Amino acid sequence: MKRILVTGASGYIGARTLAPLRALGFEVHASARRARRDTEVAWHEADLLVPGAAAALVATVRPTHLLHAAWIATPGVYVSAPENLHWLTASLELASAFADAGGERMVGVGTCFEYGPTAGPCDEQRTPLHPNTFYGACKAATWHALDGLLRARSVEFAWARVFYLFGGDEAPQRLVPSLIDALAAGRVAECTAGTQRRDFLHVDDVGRAIASLAASAVVGAVNIGSGRAITLRALIEEIARQMDESALVRFGARPIPPNDPPELVPSVERLAREVGFAPELDLAAGVAAAIAARRRPRAA
Amino acid sequence: MKRILVTGASGYIGARTLAPLRALGFEVHASARRARRDTEVAWHEADLLVPGAAAALVATVRPTHLLHAAWIATPGVYVSAPENLHWLTASLELASAFADAGGERMVGVGTCFEYGPTAGPCDEQRTPLHPNTFYGACKAATWHALDGLLRARSVEFAWARVFYLFGGDEAPQRLVPSLIDALAAGRVAECTAGTQRRDFLHVDDVGRAIASLAASAVVGAVNIGSGRAITLRALIEEIARQMDESALVRFGARPIPPNDPPELVPSVERLAREVGFAPELDLAAGVAAAIAARRRPRAA
Repeated sequence: MKRILVTGASGYIGARTLAPLRALGFEVHASARRARRDTEVAWHEADLLVPGAAAALVATVRPTHLLHAAWIATPGVYVSAPENLHWLTASLELASAFADAGGERMVGVGTCFEYGPTAGPCDEQRTPLHPNTFYGACKAATWHALDGLLRARSVEFAWARVFYLFGGDEAPQRLVPSLIDALAAGRVAECTAGTQRRDFLHVDDVGRAIASLAASAVVGAVNIGSGRAITLRALIEEIARQMDESALVRFGARPIPPNDPPELVPSVERLAREVGFAPELDLAAGVAAAIAARRRPRAA
Repeated sequence: MKRILVTGASGYIGARTLAPLRALGFEVHASARRARRDTEVAWHEADLLVPGAAAALVATVRPTHLLHAAWIATPGVYVSAPENLHWLTASLELASAFADAGGERMVGVGTCFEYGPTAGPCDEQRTPLHPNTFYGACKAATWHALDGLLRARSVEFAWARVFYLFGGDEAPQRLVPSLIDALAAGRVAECTAGTQRRDFLHVDDVGRAIASLAASAVVGAVNIGSGRAITLRALIEEIARQMDESALVRFGARPIPPNDPPELVPSVERLAREVGFAPELDLAAGVAAAIAARRRPRAA
Protein backbone atom coordinates (compact mmCIF):
# COMPACT_ATOMS: atom_id res chain seq x y z
CA MET A 1 0.00 0.00 0.00
CA LYS A 2 1.26 3.46 -0.87
CA ARG A 3 0.79 5.76 2.11
CA ILE A 4 1.14 9.47 1.51
CA LEU A 5 1.52 12.26 4.03
CA VAL A 6 0.27 15.63 2.77
CA THR A 7 1.47 18.69 4.69
CA GLY A 8 -0.45 21.93 4.44
CA ALA A 9 -3.46 19.72 3.73
CA SER A 10 -6.00 22.35 4.77
CA GLY A 11 -4.40 24.92 2.45
CA TYR A 12 -5.60 26.23 -0.88
CA ILE A 13 -3.57 23.75 -2.92
CA GLY A 14 -3.06 20.95 -0.40
CA ALA A 15 -6.79 20.47 0.15
CA ARG A 16 -7.31 19.87 -3.59
CA THR A 17 -4.80 17.03 -3.70
CA LEU A 18 -6.51 14.77 -1.15
CA ALA A 19 -9.37 13.38 -3.24
CA PRO A 20 -7.22 12.90 -6.37
CA LEU A 21 -4.60 11.10 -4.27
CA ARG A 22 -7.26 8.74 -2.89
CA ALA A 23 -8.51 8.14 -6.42
CA LEU A 24 -4.95 7.23 -7.41
CA GLY A 25 -4.88 4.51 -4.74
CA PHE A 26 -3.03 6.23 -1.90
CA GLU A 27 -3.82 5.83 1.78
CA VAL A 28 -3.93 9.55 2.53
CA HIS A 29 -2.71 11.16 5.76
CA ALA A 30 -3.34 14.87 5.98
CA SER A 31 -1.49 17.25 8.26
CA ALA A 32 -2.21 20.83 9.23
CA ARG A 33 -1.88 23.04 12.29
CA ARG A 34 -5.60 22.52 12.82
CA ALA A 35 -7.09 19.30 11.50
CA ARG A 36 -10.24 19.39 9.43
CA ARG A 37 -13.05 16.93 10.03
CA ASP A 38 -12.97 14.65 7.07
CA THR A 39 -13.78 10.97 7.28
CA GLU A 40 -12.13 10.20 3.93
CA VAL A 41 -8.56 10.81 5.09
CA ALA A 42 -6.68 10.52 8.37
CA TRP A 43 -5.91 13.93 9.88
CA HIS A 44 -2.91 14.83 12.01
CA GLU A 45 -2.26 18.09 13.83
CA ALA A 46 1.31 19.41 13.62
CA ASP A 47 3.05 22.76 13.53
CA LEU A 48 6.03 21.99 11.32
CA LEU A 49 7.79 25.20 12.35
CA VAL A 50 8.29 23.70 15.81
CA PRO A 51 11.62 21.82 15.89
CA GLY A 52 11.03 18.09 16.25
CA ALA A 53 7.43 18.24 15.04
CA ALA A 54 8.27 16.91 11.58
CA ALA A 55 10.14 13.90 12.96
CA ALA A 56 7.27 13.09 15.33
CA LEU A 57 4.71 13.36 12.53
CA VAL A 58 6.73 11.15 10.20
CA ALA A 59 7.26 8.61 12.99
CA THR A 60 3.49 8.47 13.56
CA VAL A 61 2.43 8.16 9.92
CA ARG A 62 5.43 6.22 8.48
CA PRO A 63 4.60 7.37 4.94
CA THR A 64 6.09 5.90 1.77
CA HIS A 65 5.30 9.16 -0.04
CA LEU A 66 5.40 12.76 1.12
CA LEU A 67 3.65 15.69 -0.53
CA HIS A 68 4.91 18.84 1.14
CA ALA A 69 2.43 21.63 0.43
CA ALA A 70 2.81 23.55 3.71
CA TRP A 71 4.30 27.04 3.49
CA ILE A 72 3.36 30.53 4.53
CA ALA A 73 0.57 31.70 2.19
CA THR A 74 -1.01 34.65 4.01
CA PRO A 75 -2.29 36.97 1.25
CA GLY A 76 -0.47 40.29 1.05
CA VAL A 77 2.20 39.05 3.46
CA TYR A 78 3.70 35.85 2.14
CA VAL A 79 5.78 37.52 -0.61
CA SER A 80 8.21 39.11 1.83
CA ALA A 81 7.46 37.54 5.23
CA PRO A 82 10.43 36.31 7.33
CA GLU A 83 8.52 33.02 7.72
CA ASN A 84 9.67 32.08 4.21
CA LEU A 85 13.08 31.41 5.72
CA HIS A 86 11.56 29.38 8.54
CA TRP A 87 9.75 27.26 5.96
CA LEU A 88 13.01 26.67 4.13
CA THR A 89 14.63 25.21 7.25
CA ALA A 90 11.43 23.40 8.30
CA SER A 91 11.25 21.80 4.84
CA LEU A 92 14.81 20.53 5.22
CA GLU A 93 14.00 19.08 8.63
CA LEU A 94 10.89 17.40 7.24
CA ALA A 95 12.77 15.91 4.29
CA SER A 96 15.56 14.65 6.54
CA ALA A 97 13.04 13.01 8.86
CA PHE A 98 11.29 11.42 5.87
CA ALA A 99 14.59 10.05 4.53
CA ASP A 100 15.58 8.81 8.01
CA ALA A 101 12.26 6.92 8.23
CA GLY A 102 12.85 5.15 4.92
CA GLY A 103 10.55 7.30 2.78
CA GLU A 104 10.58 6.52 -0.94
CA ARG A 105 9.36 9.60 -2.80
CA MET A 106 8.82 13.25 -1.94
CA VAL A 107 7.08 15.98 -3.91
CA GLY A 108 7.50 19.62 -2.91
CA VAL A 109 5.47 22.61 -4.04
CA GLY A 110 7.40 25.39 -5.74
CA THR A 111 6.35 28.45 -7.67
CA CYS A 112 6.74 30.26 -10.97
CA PHE A 113 8.25 33.09 -8.93
CA GLU A 114 11.43 31.04 -8.70
CA TYR A 115 11.99 31.97 -12.35
CA GLY A 116 11.37 35.65 -11.86
CA PRO A 117 10.77 37.94 -14.81
CA THR A 118 11.69 36.16 -18.02
CA ALA A 119 10.81 36.22 -21.68
CA GLY A 120 9.31 33.18 -23.36
CA PRO A 121 7.99 30.01 -21.75
CA CYS A 122 9.89 28.93 -18.63
CA ASP A 123 11.63 25.61 -19.13
CA GLU A 124 12.54 23.55 -16.08
CA GLN A 125 15.98 22.66 -17.43
CA ARG A 126 17.06 25.64 -19.48
CA THR A 127 15.57 28.72 -17.82
CA PRO A 128 17.80 30.17 -15.08
CA LEU A 129 16.19 31.03 -11.77
CA HIS A 130 16.21 34.76 -10.99
CA PRO A 131 13.62 35.15 -8.24
CA ASN A 132 12.94 38.80 -7.44
CA THR A 133 10.84 38.21 -4.32
CA PHE A 134 11.83 36.77 -0.96
CA TYR A 135 9.14 34.12 -1.41
CA GLY A 136 10.55 33.08 -4.78
CA ALA A 137 14.13 33.10 -3.48
CA CYS A 138 13.28 30.89 -0.50
CA LYS A 139 11.36 28.47 -2.74
CA ALA A 140 14.34 28.33 -5.15
CA ALA A 141 16.68 27.73 -2.22
CA THR A 142 14.38 24.98 -0.92
CA TRP A 143 14.32 23.36 -4.37
CA HIS A 144 18.11 23.17 -4.57
CA ALA A 145 18.57 22.06 -0.97
CA LEU A 146 15.89 19.35 -1.11
CA ASP A 147 17.12 18.12 -4.48
CA GLY A 148 20.65 17.79 -3.13
CA LEU A 149 19.57 16.30 0.19
CA LEU A 150 17.20 13.70 -1.24
CA ARG A 151 19.55 12.68 -4.04
CA ALA A 152 22.21 12.06 -1.40
CA ARG A 153 19.69 9.98 0.57
CA SER A 154 18.45 8.06 -2.52
CA VAL A 155 14.90 9.33 -2.11
CA GLU A 156 13.00 10.19 -5.31
CA PHE A 157 12.20 13.89 -5.48
CA ALA A 158 10.01 16.02 -7.71
CA TRP A 159 9.25 19.72 -7.37
CA ALA A 160 5.95 21.14 -8.66
CA ARG A 161 6.46 24.72 -9.90
CA VAL A 162 2.92 26.07 -9.76
CA PHE A 163 2.07 28.97 -12.07
CA TYR A 164 -1.07 31.11 -11.79
CA LEU A 165 -4.15 29.49 -10.32
CA PHE A 166 -7.66 30.53 -9.46
CA GLY A 167 -11.02 29.15 -8.35
CA GLY A 168 -12.32 27.45 -5.21
CA ASP A 169 -11.97 29.24 -1.87
CA GLU A 170 -9.39 31.69 -3.08
CA ALA A 171 -8.56 34.60 -0.75
CA PRO A 172 -11.16 37.33 -1.49
CA GLN A 173 -8.60 40.06 -2.20
CA ARG A 174 -7.08 38.16 -5.11
CA LEU A 175 -7.90 39.11 -8.70
CA VAL A 176 -10.60 36.59 -9.62
CA PRO A 177 -12.77 36.67 -6.47
CA SER A 178 -12.49 40.45 -6.09
CA LEU A 179 -13.53 40.88 -9.73
CA ILE A 180 -16.45 38.48 -9.34
CA ASP A 181 -17.55 40.28 -6.16
CA ALA A 182 -17.39 43.68 -7.86
CA LEU A 183 -19.34 42.58 -10.92
CA ALA A 184 -21.89 40.71 -8.78
CA ALA A 185 -22.47 43.91 -6.79
CA GLY A 186 -22.78 45.98 -9.94
CA ARG A 187 -19.60 47.92 -9.15
CA VAL A 188 -17.14 49.16 -11.73
CA ALA A 189 -13.99 47.01 -11.84
CA GLU A 190 -10.89 49.14 -12.37
CA CYS A 191 -8.27 46.97 -14.03
CA THR A 192 -4.81 47.39 -15.50
CA ALA A 193 -4.44 47.23 -19.27
CA GLY A 194 -4.25 43.47 -18.74
CA THR A 195 -1.50 42.92 -21.28
CA GLN A 196 0.45 40.63 -18.92
CA ARG A 197 0.71 37.13 -20.36
CA ARG A 198 -0.04 34.36 -17.88
CA ASP A 199 -1.05 30.71 -17.67
CA PHE A 200 -4.09 30.21 -15.46
CA LEU A 201 -5.08 26.79 -14.20
CA HIS A 202 -8.11 26.10 -12.03
CA VAL A 203 -7.02 25.03 -8.53
CA ASP A 204 -8.90 21.73 -8.85
CA ASP A 205 -6.71 20.90 -11.85
CA VAL A 206 -3.63 22.06 -9.92
CA GLY A 207 -4.55 19.59 -7.16
CA ARG A 208 -5.03 16.80 -9.69
CA ALA A 209 -1.78 17.66 -11.47
CA ILE A 210 0.26 17.54 -8.25
CA ALA A 211 -1.43 14.29 -7.20
CA SER A 212 -0.54 12.79 -10.60
CA LEU A 213 3.05 13.96 -10.16
CA ALA A 214 3.16 12.33 -6.71
CA ALA A 215 1.91 9.05 -8.18
CA SER A 216 4.40 9.14 -11.05
CA ALA A 217 8.11 8.35 -11.04
CA VAL A 218 9.07 11.70 -12.60
CA VAL A 219 11.90 13.50 -10.78
CA GLY A 220 13.15 17.06 -10.80
CA ALA A 221 11.28 20.30 -11.36
CA VAL A 222 7.95 20.10 -13.20
CA ASN A 223 5.97 23.18 -14.18
CA ILE A 224 2.28 23.06 -13.28
CA GLY A 225 0.14 24.99 -15.75
CA SER A 226 -2.51 24.62 -18.41
CA GLY A 227 -0.25 25.16 -21.41
CA ARG A 228 -2.61 27.94 -22.56
CA ALA A 229 -0.89 31.32 -22.32
CA ILE A 230 -3.44 34.12 -22.30
CA THR A 231 -3.46 37.77 -21.36
CA LEU A 232 -4.86 38.83 -18.03
CA ARG A 233 -7.34 40.81 -20.14
CA ALA A 234 -8.65 37.61 -21.75
CA LEU A 235 -9.28 36.08 -18.31
CA ILE A 236 -11.07 39.19 -17.07
CA GLU A 237 -13.13 39.40 -20.25
CA GLU A 238 -14.19 35.75 -19.89
CA ILE A 239 -15.36 36.35 -16.31
CA ALA A 240 -17.24 39.52 -17.27
CA ARG A 241 -18.76 37.79 -20.31
CA GLN A 242 -20.05 34.87 -18.25
CA MET A 243 -21.47 37.28 -15.67
CA ASP A 244 -22.89 39.47 -18.45
CA GLU A 245 -21.23 42.56 -16.96
CA SER A 246 -18.58 43.45 -19.53
CA ALA A 247 -19.64 47.10 -19.38
CA LEU A 248 -18.43 47.34 -15.79
CA VAL A 249 -14.79 46.55 -16.61
CA ARG A 250 -12.40 49.47 -17.11
CA PHE A 251 -9.13 48.30 -18.66
CA GLY A 252 -6.24 50.70 -18.19
CA ALA A 253 -7.82 52.39 -15.19
CA ARG A 254 -4.86 51.32 -13.04
CA PRO A 255 -1.16 51.10 -13.90
CA ILE A 256 0.49 47.71 -14.14
CA PRO A 257 2.56 47.29 -10.96
CA PRO A 258 6.26 47.80 -11.79
CA ASN A 259 7.26 44.38 -10.41
CA ASP A 260 4.57 42.54 -12.41
CA PRO A 261 6.38 40.66 -15.18
CA PRO A 262 5.01 41.21 -18.72
CA GLU A 263 5.13 37.46 -19.32
CA LEU A 264 5.33 34.53 -16.92
CA VAL A 265 4.21 31.31 -18.58
CA PRO A 266 5.48 27.74 -18.42
CA SER A 267 6.46 25.07 -20.80
CA VAL A 268 4.23 22.19 -19.67
CA GLU A 269 5.90 19.52 -21.77
CA ARG A 270 7.15 17.58 -18.75
CA LEU A 271 3.72 17.68 -17.10
CA ALA A 272 1.93 16.61 -20.28
CA ARG A 273 4.36 14.06 -21.68
CA GLU A 274 6.19 12.62 -18.67
CA VAL A 275 3.52 12.88 -15.98
CA GLY A 276 0.74 12.39 -18.56
CA PHE A 277 -1.52 15.04 -17.05
CA ALA A 278 -4.12 17.02 -18.97
CA PRO A 279 -6.44 19.60 -17.36
CA GLU A 280 -10.09 18.65 -16.99
CA LEU A 281 -11.30 22.26 -17.07
CA ASP A 282 -10.71 24.57 -20.01
CA LEU A 283 -10.70 28.32 -19.37
CA ALA A 284 -14.48 28.73 -19.77
CA ALA A 285 -15.25 25.77 -17.51
CA GLY A 286 -12.72 26.91 -14.92
CA VAL A 287 -14.17 30.41 -14.90
CA ALA A 288 -17.72 29.03 -14.61
CA ALA A 289 -16.65 26.92 -11.62
CA ALA A 290 -14.90 29.90 -10.02
CA ILE A 291 -17.99 32.08 -10.39
CA ALA A 292 -20.24 29.36 -9.01
CA ALA A 293 -17.92 28.77 -6.01
CA ARG A 294 -17.71 32.49 -5.24
CA ARG A 295 -21.44 33.07 -5.34
CA ARG A 296 -22.37 29.97 -3.36
CA PRO A 297 -23.32 30.81 0.26
CA ARG A 298 -20.66 29.56 2.68
CA ALA A 299 -21.09 27.25 5.62
CA ALA A 300 -20.00 28.92 8.84
CA MET B 1 36.30 53.24 8.56
CA LYS B 2 35.19 50.10 6.76
CA ARG B 3 35.34 47.18 9.17
CA ILE B 4 35.11 43.69 7.66
CA LEU B 5 34.48 40.41 9.41
CA VAL B 6 35.92 37.40 7.56
CA THR B 7 34.53 34.01 8.57
CA GLY B 8 36.51 30.87 7.81
CA ALA B 9 39.55 33.15 8.01
CA SER B 10 41.97 30.33 8.72
CA GLY B 11 40.73 28.38 5.71
CA TYR B 12 42.35 27.85 2.32
CA ILE B 13 40.53 30.77 0.67
CA GLY B 14 39.68 32.92 3.69
CA ALA B 15 43.31 33.20 4.80
CA ARG B 16 44.26 34.64 1.38
CA THR B 17 41.75 37.47 1.62
CA LEU B 18 43.11 39.05 4.82
CA ALA B 19 46.20 40.85 3.48
CA PRO B 20 44.42 42.07 0.31
CA LEU B 21 41.53 43.37 2.44
CA ARG B 22 43.96 45.31 4.63
CA ALA B 23 45.63 46.69 1.52
CA LEU B 24 42.21 47.86 0.35
CA GLY B 25 41.78 49.90 3.52
CA PHE B 26 39.62 47.59 5.64
CA GLU B 27 39.95 47.12 9.38
CA VAL B 28 40.02 43.32 9.26
CA HIS B 29 38.44 41.04 11.86
CA ALA B 30 39.08 37.35 11.28
CA SER B 31 37.00 34.55 12.72
CA ALA B 32 37.66 30.82 12.92
CA ARG B 33 36.99 27.99 15.32
CA ARG B 34 40.60 28.32 16.41
CA ALA B 35 42.19 31.74 16.07
CA ARG B 36 45.58 32.07 14.43
CA ARG B 37 48.25 34.28 15.93
CA ASP B 38 48.52 37.20 13.60
CA THR B 39 49.20 40.71 14.73
CA GLU B 40 47.99 42.24 11.47
CA VAL B 41 44.31 41.44 12.02
CA ALA B 42 42.02 41.00 15.03
CA TRP B 43 41.14 37.34 15.60
CA HIS B 44 37.90 36.03 17.08
CA GLU B 45 37.09 32.43 17.98
CA ALA B 46 33.61 31.26 17.04
CA ASP B 47 31.93 28.04 15.97
CA LEU B 48 29.23 29.35 13.64
CA LEU B 49 27.40 26.01 13.68
CA VAL B 50 26.45 26.67 17.31
CA PRO B 51 23.12 28.53 17.41
CA GLY B 52 23.59 32.07 18.67
CA ALA B 53 27.35 32.14 17.92
CA ALA B 54 26.90 34.25 14.79
CA ALA B 55 24.83 36.89 16.57
CA ALA B 56 27.37 37.08 19.41
CA LEU B 57 30.26 37.43 16.96
CA VAL B 58 28.52 40.15 14.98
CA ALA B 59 27.62 42.00 18.19
CA THR B 60 31.27 41.94 19.24
CA VAL B 61 32.77 43.06 15.93
CA ARG B 62 29.95 45.34 14.62
CA PRO B 63 31.24 44.99 11.05
CA THR B 64 30.13 47.20 8.14
CA HIS B 65 31.18 44.44 5.73
CA LEU B 66 30.98 40.65 6.01
CA LEU B 67 32.96 38.16 3.95
CA HIS B 68 31.57 34.72 4.69
CA ALA B 69 34.14 32.14 3.66
CA ALA B 70 33.39 29.53 6.35
CA TRP B 71 32.00 26.19 5.13
CA ILE B 72 32.85 22.54 5.44
CA ALA B 73 35.91 21.90 3.26
CA THR B 74 37.31 18.60 4.54
CA PRO B 75 38.95 16.94 1.50
CA GLY B 76 37.22 13.79 0.33
CA VAL B 77 34.27 14.49 2.60
CA TYR B 78 32.88 17.93 1.86
CA VAL B 79 31.19 16.96 -1.41
CA SER B 80 28.50 14.90 0.27
CA ALA B 81 28.78 15.63 4.00
CA PRO B 82 25.57 16.37 5.95
CA GLU B 83 27.37 19.47 7.32
CA ASN B 84 26.65 21.21 4.00
CA LEU B 85 23.06 21.56 5.20
CA HIS B 86 24.21 22.87 8.57
CA TRP B 87 26.28 25.49 6.79
CA LEU B 88 23.25 26.54 4.77
CA THR B 89 21.25 27.26 7.90
CA ALA B 90 24.26 28.73 9.74
CA SER B 91 24.84 31.08 6.80
CA LEU B 92 21.25 32.28 7.01
CA GLU B 93 21.61 32.89 10.73
CA LEU B 94 24.85 34.81 10.17
CA ALA B 95 23.33 36.96 7.42
CA SER B 96 20.26 37.71 9.55
CA ALA B 97 22.45 38.74 12.48
CA PHE B 98 24.53 40.95 10.17
CA ALA B 99 21.41 42.64 8.79
CA ASP B 100 19.98 43.06 12.30
CA ALA B 101 23.21 44.79 13.38
CA GLY B 102 23.02 47.29 10.52
CA GLY B 103 25.60 45.66 8.24
CA GLU B 104 26.00 47.26 4.81
CA ARG B 105 27.50 44.69 2.47
CA MET B 106 27.98 40.93 2.52
CA VAL B 107 29.98 38.69 0.19
CA GLY B 108 29.50 34.93 0.27
CA VAL B 109 31.69 32.26 -1.26
CA GLY B 110 30.03 29.97 -3.78
CA THR B 111 31.37 27.42 -6.22
CA CYS B 112 31.41 26.44 -9.88
CA PHE B 113 29.70 23.23 -8.73
CA GLU B 114 26.49 25.23 -8.43
CA TYR B 115 26.37 25.16 -12.24
CA GLY B 116 26.97 21.45 -12.53
CA PRO B 117 28.00 19.90 -15.83
CA THR B 118 27.46 22.37 -18.65
CA ALA B 119 28.81 23.16 -22.07
CA GLY B 120 30.45 26.47 -22.80
CA PRO B 121 31.50 29.19 -20.38
CA CYS B 122 29.21 29.52 -17.35
CA ASP B 123 27.49 32.90 -17.28
CA GLU B 124 26.18 34.23 -13.97
CA GLN B 125 22.91 35.46 -15.50
CA ARG B 126 22.15 33.03 -18.30
CA THR B 127 23.47 29.63 -17.22
CA PRO B 128 20.93 27.63 -15.19
CA LEU B 129 22.13 26.00 -11.98
CA HIS B 130 22.07 22.19 -12.10
CA PRO B 131 24.31 21.14 -9.21
CA ASN B 132 24.94 17.41 -9.19
CA THR B 133 26.63 17.24 -5.81
CA PHE B 134 25.21 17.87 -2.35
CA TYR B 135 27.90 20.50 -1.82
CA GLY B 136 26.90 22.31 -5.01
CA ALA B 137 23.19 22.05 -4.21
CA CYS B 138 23.63 23.50 -0.72
CA LYS B 139 25.77 26.33 -2.08
CA ALA B 140 23.12 27.07 -4.74
CA ALA B 141 20.42 27.02 -2.07
CA THR B 142 22.49 29.36 0.11
CA TRP B 143 22.96 31.72 -2.84
CA HIS B 144 19.22 32.01 -3.47
CA ALA B 145 18.30 32.27 0.21
CA LEU B 146 20.95 34.90 1.03
CA ASP B 147 20.12 36.89 -2.09
CA GLY B 148 16.44 36.95 -1.16
CA LEU B 149 17.09 37.62 2.52
CA LEU B 150 19.58 40.44 2.04
CA ARG B 151 17.58 42.12 -0.73
CA ALA B 152 14.60 42.16 1.64
CA ARG B 153 16.82 43.70 4.34
CA SER B 154 18.41 46.25 1.95
CA VAL B 155 21.91 44.87 2.50
CA GLU B 156 24.20 44.76 -0.55
CA PHE B 157 25.08 41.18 -1.47
CA ALA B 158 27.55 39.56 -3.84
CA TRP B 159 28.32 35.90 -4.27
CA ALA B 160 31.76 34.76 -5.44
CA ARG B 161 31.48 31.57 -7.51
CA VAL B 162 34.98 30.17 -7.26
CA PHE B 163 36.16 27.89 -10.07
CA TYR B 164 39.29 25.69 -9.89
CA LEU B 165 42.13 26.89 -7.71
CA PHE B 166 45.53 25.63 -6.69
CA GLY B 167 48.69 26.65 -4.87
CA GLY B 168 49.57 27.57 -1.30
CA ASP B 169 48.84 25.07 1.46
CA GLU B 170 46.47 22.97 -0.61
CA ALA B 171 45.41 19.63 0.87
CA PRO B 172 48.12 17.11 -0.15
CA GLN B 173 45.70 14.65 -1.77
CA ARG B 174 44.54 17.20 -4.33
CA LEU B 175 45.82 17.08 -7.91
CA VAL B 176 48.57 19.71 -7.90
CA PRO B 177 50.34 18.88 -4.60
CA SER B 178 50.08 15.13 -5.16
CA LEU B 179 51.56 15.53 -8.64
CA ILE B 180 54.37 17.75 -7.33
CA ASP B 181 55.09 15.24 -4.55
CA ALA B 182 55.20 12.32 -6.99
CA LEU B 183 57.50 14.07 -9.45
CA ALA B 184 59.72 15.39 -6.65
CA ALA B 185 60.11 11.80 -5.39
CA GLY B 186 60.84 10.50 -8.89
CA ARG B 187 57.64 8.45 -8.94
CA VAL B 188 55.52 7.88 -12.04
CA ALA B 189 52.37 10.04 -12.03
CA GLU B 190 49.39 8.14 -13.41
CA CYS B 191 46.94 10.66 -14.82
CA THR B 192 43.71 10.64 -16.77
CA ALA B 193 43.81 11.68 -20.43
CA GLY B 194 43.47 15.20 -19.06
CA THR B 195 41.06 16.38 -21.74
CA GLN B 196 38.80 18.09 -19.18
CA ARG B 197 38.67 21.84 -19.79
CA ARG B 198 39.06 23.95 -16.66
CA ASP B 199 39.98 27.44 -15.49
CA PHE B 200 42.72 27.36 -12.86
CA LEU B 201 43.49 30.40 -10.73
CA HIS B 202 46.22 30.52 -8.09
CA VAL B 203 44.68 30.76 -4.62
CA ASP B 204 46.54 34.02 -3.92
CA ASP B 205 44.73 35.55 -6.90
CA VAL B 206 41.44 34.01 -5.68
CA GLY B 207 41.97 35.77 -2.34
CA ARG B 208 42.73 39.06 -4.08
CA ALA B 209 39.72 38.69 -6.39
CA ILE B 210 37.32 38.10 -3.51
CA ALA B 211 38.80 40.99 -1.54
CA SER B 212 38.32 43.24 -4.58
CA LEU B 213 34.72 42.06 -4.87
CA ALA B 214 34.16 42.84 -1.19
CA ALA B 215 35.56 46.35 -1.68
CA SER B 216 33.42 46.97 -4.79
CA ALA B 217 29.72 47.78 -5.05
CA VAL B 218 29.02 44.89 -7.45
CA VAL B 219 26.02 42.78 -6.45
CA GLY B 220 24.81 39.32 -7.46
CA ALA B 221 26.80 36.26 -8.51
CA VAL B 222 30.32 36.86 -9.84
CA ASN B 223 32.46 34.05 -11.24
CA ILE B 224 36.02 33.90 -9.88
CA GLY B 225 38.47 32.56 -12.46
CA SER B 226 41.41 33.49 -14.61
CA GLY B 227 39.55 33.70 -17.91
CA ARG B 228 42.08 31.23 -19.38
CA ALA B 229 40.40 27.90 -20.15
CA ILE B 230 42.96 25.14 -20.44
CA THR B 231 42.95 21.38 -20.38
CA LEU B 232 43.95 19.54 -17.25
CA ARG B 233 46.71 18.08 -19.42
CA ALA B 234 48.13 21.54 -20.07
CA LEU B 235 48.31 22.23 -16.33
CA ILE B 236 49.99 18.89 -15.63
CA GLU B 237 52.44 19.40 -18.50
CA GLU B 238 53.39 22.84 -17.18
CA ILE B 239 54.12 21.43 -13.72
CA ALA B 240 56.15 18.54 -15.15
CA ARG B 241 58.01 20.91 -17.49
CA GLN B 242 58.99 23.25 -14.68
CA MET B 243 60.12 20.28 -12.57
CA ASP B 244 61.91 18.79 -15.57
CA GLU B 245 60.14 15.47 -15.04
CA SER B 246 57.81 15.23 -18.08
CA ALA B 247 58.89 11.62 -18.66
CA LEU B 248 57.26 10.56 -15.36
CA VAL B 249 53.74 11.60 -16.43
CA ARG B 250 51.46 8.89 -17.88
CA PHE B 251 48.41 10.43 -19.51
CA GLY B 252 45.49 8.03 -19.96
CA ALA B 253 46.72 5.65 -17.25
CA ARG B 254 43.51 6.25 -15.29
CA PRO B 255 39.94 6.69 -16.53
CA ILE B 256 38.27 10.08 -16.18
CA PRO B 257 35.80 9.77 -13.27
CA PRO B 258 32.24 9.53 -14.65
CA ASN B 259 31.04 12.56 -12.66
CA ASP B 260 33.92 14.76 -13.83
CA PRO B 261 32.44 17.27 -16.28
CA PRO B 262 34.25 17.53 -19.65
CA GLU B 263 34.14 21.32 -19.40
CA LEU B 264 33.60 23.62 -16.42
CA VAL B 265 34.86 27.12 -17.15
CA PRO B 266 33.54 30.59 -16.33
CA SER B 267 32.83 33.75 -18.15
CA VAL B 268 34.85 36.26 -16.10
CA GLU B 269 33.42 39.36 -17.71
CA ARG B 270 31.77 40.57 -14.51
CA LEU B 271 34.98 40.05 -12.51
CA ALA B 272 37.13 41.78 -15.11
CA ARG B 273 34.85 44.64 -16.17
CA GLU B 274 32.64 45.36 -13.17
CA VAL B 275 34.96 44.45 -10.30
CA GLY B 276 38.02 45.48 -12.32
CA PHE B 277 40.12 42.52 -11.21
CA ALA B 278 42.99 41.01 -13.20
CA PRO B 279 45.11 38.08 -11.95
CA GLU B 280 48.68 38.88 -10.93
CA LEU B 281 49.94 35.38 -11.68
CA ASP B 282 49.76 33.81 -15.12
CA LEU B 283 49.75 30.02 -15.39
CA ALA B 284 53.54 29.66 -15.41
CA ALA B 285 53.98 32.00 -12.44
CA GLY B 286 51.16 30.31 -10.52
CA VAL B 287 52.67 26.89 -11.13
CA ALA B 288 56.12 28.13 -10.08
CA ALA B 289 54.64 29.50 -6.85
CA ALA B 290 52.77 26.25 -6.19
CA ILE B 291 55.93 24.17 -6.69
CA ALA B 292 57.93 26.47 -4.42
CA ALA B 293 55.27 26.39 -1.70
CA ARG B 294 55.03 22.60 -1.84
CA ARG B 295 58.76 22.00 -1.62
CA ARG B 296 59.35 24.56 1.13
CA PRO B 297 59.90 22.90 4.54
CA ARG B 298 56.94 23.51 6.82
CA ALA B 299 56.94 25.04 10.25
CA ALA B 300 55.53 22.62 12.82
